[in-house]
Amino acid sequence: MTGVDVLTLGETMVSLRTGTALRLGGTLEMTMAGAESNVAIGLARLGHSVRWAGRVGVDEVGTFILRCLRAESVLVDTVTLDPDRPTGLMLAERRINDLSRVSYYRVGSAGSALCPADAAASLTPVPRVLHVTGITPALSDTAAAAVREAVRLAKAAGALVSVDVNYRAKLWTEKIARPVLSALARSADLVIASDDELALFVDDPLDEAAACAELATFGVRQLVIKRGAHGASVWHDGQVEHAPAISVSVRDTIGAGDAFTAGYLSAILDGLSPVEALRRGTVTGAFAVATVGDWEGAPTRAELGLLQEPPGATLR
Amino acid sequence: MTGVDVLTLGETMVSLRTGTALRLGGTLEMTMAGAESNVAIGLARLGHSVRWAGRVGVDEVGTFILRCLRAESVLVDTVTLDPDRPTGLMLAERRINDLSRVSYYRVGSAGSALCPADAAASLTPVPRVLHVTGITPALSDTAAAAVREAVRLAKAAGALVSVDVNYRAKLWTEKIARPVLSALARSADLVIASDDELALFVDDPLDEAAACAELATFGVRQLVIKRGAHGASVWHDGQVEHAPAISVSVRDTIGAGDAFTAGYLSAILDGLSPVEALRRGTVTGAFAVATVGDWEGAPTRAELGLLQEPPGATLR
Amino acid sequence: MTGVDVLTLGETMVSLRTGTALRLGGTLEMTMAGAESNVAIGLARLGHSVRWAGRVGVDEVGTFILRCLRAESVLVDTVTLDPDRPTGLMLAERRINDLSRVSYYRVGSAGSALCPADAAASLTPVPRVLHVTGITPALSDTAAAAVREAVRLAKAAGALVSVDVNYRAKLWTEKIARPVLSALARSADLVIASDDELALFVDDPLDEAAACAELATFGVRQLVIKRGAHGASVWHDGQVEHAPAISVSVRDTIGAGDAFTAGYLSAILDGLSPVEALRRGTVTGAFAVATVGDWEGAPTRAELGLLQEPPGATLR
Amino acid sequence: MTGVDVLTLGETMVSLRTGTALRLGGTLEMTMAGAESNVAIGLARLGHSVRWAGRVGVDEVGTFILRCLRAESVLVDTVTLDPDRPTGLMLAERRINDLSRVSYYRVGSAGSALCPADAAASLTPVPRVLHVTGITPALSDTAAAAVREAVRLAKAAGALVSVDVNYRAKLWTEKIARPVLSALARSADLVIASDDELALFVDDPLDEAAACAELATFGVRQLVIKRGAHGASVWHDGQVEHAPAISVSVRDTIGAGDAFTAGYLSAILDGLSPVEALRRGTVTGAFAVATVGDWEGAPTRAELGLLQEPPGATLR
Amino acid sequence: MTGVDVLTLGETMVSLRTGTALRLGGTLEMTMAGAESNVAIGLARLGHSVRWAGRVGVDEVGTFILRCLRAESVLVDTVTLDPDRPTGLMLAERRINDLSRVSYYRVGSAGSALCPADAAASLTPVPRVLHVTGITPALSDTAAAAVREAVRLAKAAGALVSVDVNYRAKLWTEKIARPVLSALARSADLVIASDDELALFVDDPLDEAAACAELATFGVRQLVIKRGAHGASVWHDGQVEHAPAISVSVRDTIGAGDAFTAGYLSAILDGLSPVEALRRGTVTGAFAVATVGDWEGAPTRAELGLLQEPPGATLR
Amino acid sequence: MTGVDVLTLGETMVSLRTGTALRLGGTLEMTMAGAESNVAIGLARLGHSVRWAGRVGVDEVGTFILRCLRAESVLVDTVTLDPDRPTGLMLAERRINDLSRVSYYRVGSAGSALCPADAAASLTPVPRVLHVTGITPALSDTAAAAVREAVRLAKAAGALVSVDVNYRAKLWTEKIARPVLSALARSADLVIASDDELALFVDDPLDEAAACAELATFGVRQLVIKRGAHGASVWHDGQVEHAPAISVSVRDTIGAGDAFTAGYLSAILDGLSPVEALRRGTVTGAFAVATVGDWEGAPTRAELGLLQEPPGATLR
Repeated sequence: MTGVDVLTLGETMVSLRTGTALRLGGTLEMTMAGAESNVAIGLARLGHSVRWAGRVGVDEVGTFILRCLRAESVLVDTVTLDPDRPTGLMLAERRINDLSRVSYYRVGSAGSALCPADAAASLTPVPRVLHVTGITPALSDTAAAAVREAVRLAKAAGALVSVDVNYRAKLWTEKIARPVLSALARSADLVIASDDELALFVDDPLDEAAACAELATFGVRQLVIKRGAHGASVWHDGQVEHAPAISVSVRDTIGAGDAFTAGYLSAILDGLSPVEALRRGTVTGAFAVATVGDWEGAPTRAELGLLQEPPGATLR
Repeated sequence: MTGVDVLTLGETMVSLRTGTALRLGGTLEMTMAGAESNVAIGLARLGHSVRWAGRVGVDEVGTFILRCLRAESVLVDTVTLDPDRPTGLMLAERRINDLSRVSYYRVGSAGSALCPADAAASLTPVPRVLHVTGITPALSDTAAAAVREAVRLAKAAGALVSVDVNYRAKLWTEKIARPVLSALARSADLVIASDDELALFVDDPLDEAAACAELATFGVRQLVIKRGAHGASVWHDGQVEHAPAISVSVRDTIGAGDAFTAGYLSAILDGLSPVEALRRGTVTGAFAVATVGDWEGAPTRAELGLLQEPPGATLR
Repeated sequence: MTGVDVLTLGETMVSLRTGTALRLGGTLEMTMAGAESNVAIGLARLGHSVRWAGRVGVDEVGTFILRCLRAESVLVDTVTLDPDRPTGLMLAERRINDLSRVSYYRVGSAGSALCPADAAASLTPVPRVLHVTGITPALSDTAAAAVREAVRLAKAAGALVSVDVNYRAKLWTEKIARPVLSALARSADLVIASDDELALFVDDPLDEAAACAELATFGVRQLVIKRGAHGASVWHDGQVEHAPAISVSVRDTIGAGDAFTAGYLSAILDGLSPVEALRRGTVTGAFAVATVGDWEGAPTRAELGLLQEPPGATLR
Repeated sequence: MTGVDVLTLGETMVSLRTGTALRLGGTLEMTMAGAESNVAIGLARLGHSVRWAGRVGVDEVGTFILRCLRAESVLVDTVTLDPDRPTGLMLAERRINDLSRVSYYRVGSAGSALCPADAAASLTPVPRVLHVTGITPALSDTAAAAVREAVRLAKAAGALVSVDVNYRAKLWTEKIARPVLSALARSADLVIASDDELALFVDDPLDEAAACAELATFGVRQLVIKRGAHGASVWHDGQVEHAPAISVSVRDTIGAGDAFTAGYLSAILDGLSPVEALRRGTVTGAFAVATVGDWEGAPTRAELGLLQEPPGATLR
Repeated sequence: MTGVDVLTLGETMVSLRTGTALRLGGTLEMTMAGAESNVAIGLARLGHSVRWAGRVGVDEVGTFILRCLRAESVLVDTVTLDPDRPTGLMLAERRINDLSRVSYYRVGSAGSALCPADAAASLTPVPRVLHVTGITPALSDTAAAAVREAVRLAKAAGALVSVDVNYRAKLWTEKIARPVLSALARSADLVIASDDELALFVDDPLDEAAACAELATFGVRQLVIKRGAHGASVWHDGQVEHAPAISVSVRDTIGAGDAFTAGYLSAILDGLSPVEALRRGTVTGAFAVATVGDWEGAPTRAELGLLQEPPGATLR
Repeated sequence: MTGVDVLTLGETMVSLRTGTALRLGGTLEMTMAGAESNVAIGLARLGHSVRWAGRVGVDEVGTFILRCLRAESVLVDTVTLDPDRPTGLMLAERRINDLSRVSYYRVGSAGSALCPADAAASLTPVPRVLHVTGITPALSDTAAAAVREAVRLAKAAGALVSVDVNYRAKLWTEKIARPVLSALARSADLVIASDDELALFVDDPLDEAAACAELATFGVRQLVIKRGAHGASVWHDGQVEHAPAISVSVRDTIGAGDAFTAGYLSAILDGLSPVEALRRGTVTGAFAVATVGDWEGAPTRAELGLLQEPPGATLR
């Protein structure tokens, strides 16, 4: 099996979107959604080698997911085809003010049956970076175990472990999530979280310096805090650095955090400093919010500079 | 026949819209347009029982209108199917700056043949509220008589009569419209008008207090004045109250006044005060201007709070 | 609650169809699918009063289903909105030779949680005809009980009970299905089945006369056998009558059996003889197979004669 | 003004088509429909110079019609823009067996206000051929007078007058139509009719030879009879000749007669014999029935041979 | 051949646009693109008589271009159909911030084979205005010669010669372009350029007054400088006048310069002053940037006032 | 580099298709076309490992081609990205009787610049089968040399060489093609040709036995002759075997030959006999002609049996 820069694992679903209202019917556009595969595509577009591990059903929509990922040069050679469970789905509609309203069909899905063996099969050879999110442990006990196993194997082999906390209130309560997310964050080298997620894994969410210090005692070296329209910060080596958000016309915030993460990890893989990674993350995040679609708008390396063009300009 | 909260009557047409220019051809989206049915849907979405009365042709597009209204839980059990006249049509295109340009095929339409018997058939049992507009009297003599008959029956039975002045310069001149609209307004309990329509039914359109007093002598208890981007006011019980417009990205102003009226009447039916009704009207009006479509974007009761979400956010 | 000609109950799902291949992505058309609601619409198009009972989720796609049914004049006033379960989905694609390939997301759906109380709530007043299918008992124990309860109440009140056997191998094995379907068939006045389903509920499926006699001992008065391209037969009063299928260009066989059933029941409601009902069933069935969509092509009463027009003709 | 091979005049409407059912809404495709403009386009595609005369409204859909005709190289330089009347519309849907169901919005349309002055303005210089149909006289008294005036001027100047009887039962009764159509046919050099239209303008519709002789006494030199799937015949110079229809897969018969006429007149303009004209008419007619659209499928001169290619072949 | 107000000549290509990303596939919308035909359409919409000269292939997309131009009332009677070369194509996609990214298939195209004979054939009778751009000389030696020949003939006959400098870096280097564009500009009566193009044809691009004086020595009477969002200026008769840009929501800047030019030339043809022409140019330019499409949004004369309507308003 | 079952090389273009007529504009669907990549996808769908070699431009449509091939699990790791040439395009439209009319933009394309070094880079390790077509040598001298080099290397390493003669009259004359195709055929182990192509590479095209013997002297072991609707034959080991075509509704013949070849080679790779390979070829060919699209309808191994389902059936 080919070695890769980044391995990520989780559930990817087929996403069916309408630009108007589901209750009015009409047509839905088929695409693919998954925090981890969003990150994988974002990294692959930037030229890194990436493998995505997970499960899909033995069905045409599972094939659609694999086709999309392969098209984007994300390796899917360790994906498990689950003959007994369907590929998960989600429905999304647009409401006023470009709100996205989504609902999920993922209970009992192939993706939620991810297990430690799936993880283990994807970690030989060990990647330079393992990236996981706090969504996967919420899906099932086996999925939670798969994440733990992946982290354990990656750490043992010296890979950098990146964790995006990504708390989803629809999947589990804060009470159930807190010990799991807390343990997950403590096992990472790099933790990414939105500011309101801090409360889920540190003692004092209002004192970021203390939070950073607390995590550092477990070995976390970088704590990246996403603040939406207020940009992002990174705590590392006892200091904090900040990057403002880039102003673009917001069309769709889904996938913005994942795009940010892809930009951040890409810069780290390139050997850049945390604050430079932060800046690349705000660029890739801006592409995501300015485009409809969770991953479709991710920039290639050559496109990173496009945000400097005047709106409406023509590139020949 | 089931009793309802609100009865409204008028002409509803099939609307054919293109997002570009009619002269360039392409495809048109079929929907439905009518001031009174817009109000009916707005009220039904908010959970009120509503009946719409009117006429459609015995044709597939007439069936389309009835299907749409039934889909929205608006009762159409007293609608007259006119075997001799076609259902009216309108064409709409988009021009720069999101201008809508519309043209009508309603001369000789089934809807314009509305008559007093149609009205009478819909008023047993009498609804809590009768809502009519100043468009209907402009369509034909029988349609004008139908509105008068509906108002007469509603008042006789103690229903609240709501009138939206809705002057349409394409249908009749100010000179012809003035006595009709003036008589209609004076027969109402609640009059809704834009500020520039005041001149059509009161003596001194520049002195709103005097206008209110004048109408009060005929029994009008609430005078609601729509001021577009400047919000709306209500004169009642010798005082005036105001609500500012809610700032949203304007996509299409067609139907905004009707959406406002639905919100206003909904609050009145809920027993709220005029100023509270004004506020709900600005909320429902904001949904209308922020959505393409005359009625498609009307909020359900549960959605009234959506305007507080940040633009582009994801609702799971 | 209004009395109706026909009550039917079961699960209706949102159906998402592509004209090409799911694995290639693109757009899906949203529509609605359910054997019982197909029959309900078929009957309503022919002018009968119909109620459909079932469960949908408190979600936008559930609202879509209710909108579609109301649009088609099918009463949904006893439908239960299930706050804890999503509305079921199905995906459909087209393969060569106009094959339809479908997959379901109905495990744990609102529709499958149908229960006896739902049935009971829909049977006052009792309809002239109760129509159920063998799909519903396969969905869950409560759904099976709901069908039994509906049949019990209908029979007690003297309604005609119609059962379409509709065995679905994806939902349960023949072994598990046989006693359930057999009991269901025996409780009916009218049994509709394809020829290869006979084995599931009679002793000797190869001897239709004997099968008919066997069912008659339980009170079944009409046994209708659908033979696809070979037409249909009805055994009643000790005799058999046959109607050939009507030749049309086959576009989509989904919903053909339900369309046939709607035509058959419509004629029975009109007081026609079994063989006349058979003929109407072949007409309504022909409309279904000649149109893409499970119910969209169902004829109105005025359209029943359209099959006699030459293909490609213009109706002005 | 440029001289042309053919002048034709009549009403052309905007046609809005759906491939499914109007009652289900969705999107409509905008195109253009009119028997005479169909003939004009058919001739222009074959390389003849053609002018179409008529009226359209001063509206965007009128502009659409002019754009379409100009695009097809049909001269519209004498078209009257009517500021007081809208351009006519028609709606079309598809039903099973490729039936087209159409409804019209042409009462009071600009096109129906065609008048003698419009005709006169288009006949200087006089064309080689004037082609009119029996639809136009049915639209209004002025339109009938316009056709008479056009024929009078054309005959006076020695142009060949071609009349397609084209009786439309929706527009007038047989009783009212008969004298008008009869007079129109008698004034022609060339009469085109379907076999069941003969009864409208000759004494003995069952004896075609007698009919031909009768018309000849008024100066009619060619009587072309369209027999649909049975081909067409031409009576001329005391003899009859026949051409069989060309077998293609029938998709839409609207416009087939007009396409036939265009082929026939084209051959006459080329100096070919009546039977050769008949053959070209069956070819152009075959293109029309094999294509959805009234005129879109009309062949260019280079495409006349395409019917000899095997179905599904690739032309590089 | 009919005399016209304006003759323009150059290459027009078929343009295939996607609203998303080419790499993701999907559907492309076919339209037409060419700086000179954009100007031609802009002028024709405003009521002027215009001829466009150029070459297209003998292919269906060439026919598409001719259809589009004829539809817009642009004369194409001198266009050469080139049997040996295909019509040029361009692909366009949208990227974030409404950027347009385009690529061309015009090497060896029919349009690039324009030659002096083509030009000469279009200049009898001589138009009031000849408009050419600096794109055409970059296409081929024969195309450059064609432009020179057109200018020579126009000047000889006393027509006003308008030159839009329109430097395209993709087609030639500044070094090669400079002498050609400089000679072209000097041969004009009216030169239109963006401020950063000045350096290509005057000695001191930073001193506009000097540039104007320099050009005046060659006979240039008006120098129009486009400054994008900063409006435009005109140097004439020793003075400079300015018009600010009109603020609209920018959707697509392609074609904006051509639309400006059409407005400017239209006013000159109407006998207005240079500053009035500048103002009309900013209006027509605003229509272009506010509409997706290079020419589709060009205003008719009646629409010039539409920019004064409030955004989102309804025009009945 | 991974070893594969099959290597194929050639030019793949972006294909833009409309279902109606290019001259009418509208929308085009983007897909991908190339005889060799069609074969590659056909083989990959059946589970074989395949590499496609060739050149694409450094442009978004080149990226589209690579995305499509990767999605279909075809390896593109040796594809050359040509910075100086664009990816080739083709336009396709539908005409009556499902005729496809195509035109190409491939002169000077990246794909036509294929060279021996590209071939050499793709043949380490050597595949089990090399498949080439007679289209590639027609594109350019370097492309012809690339094919020769690929064949030379494959033969030297003992791979089976498969040649599809695929003469394209648009690309070269018979006179120029004959020596090239003849040499190519003689170098193969397996030659595939349509019956009318035989004349291009054997002495006596009317005597297939002699032709087979002639080729055998050069080492050709199997001569497969495609006869369209008449099926296919294989000459091998001194005998001939035949397989009839499978009857399906023909929608689009483009890609049918390539699909046949994929089926044939797949069976050979599976170790089946020539006549069994012939039968699989007729199955995969039937999928191609029954689906619109050159490769989209290719069956997976599991779908090979679908042709036995009744048309219009439902697969759950």
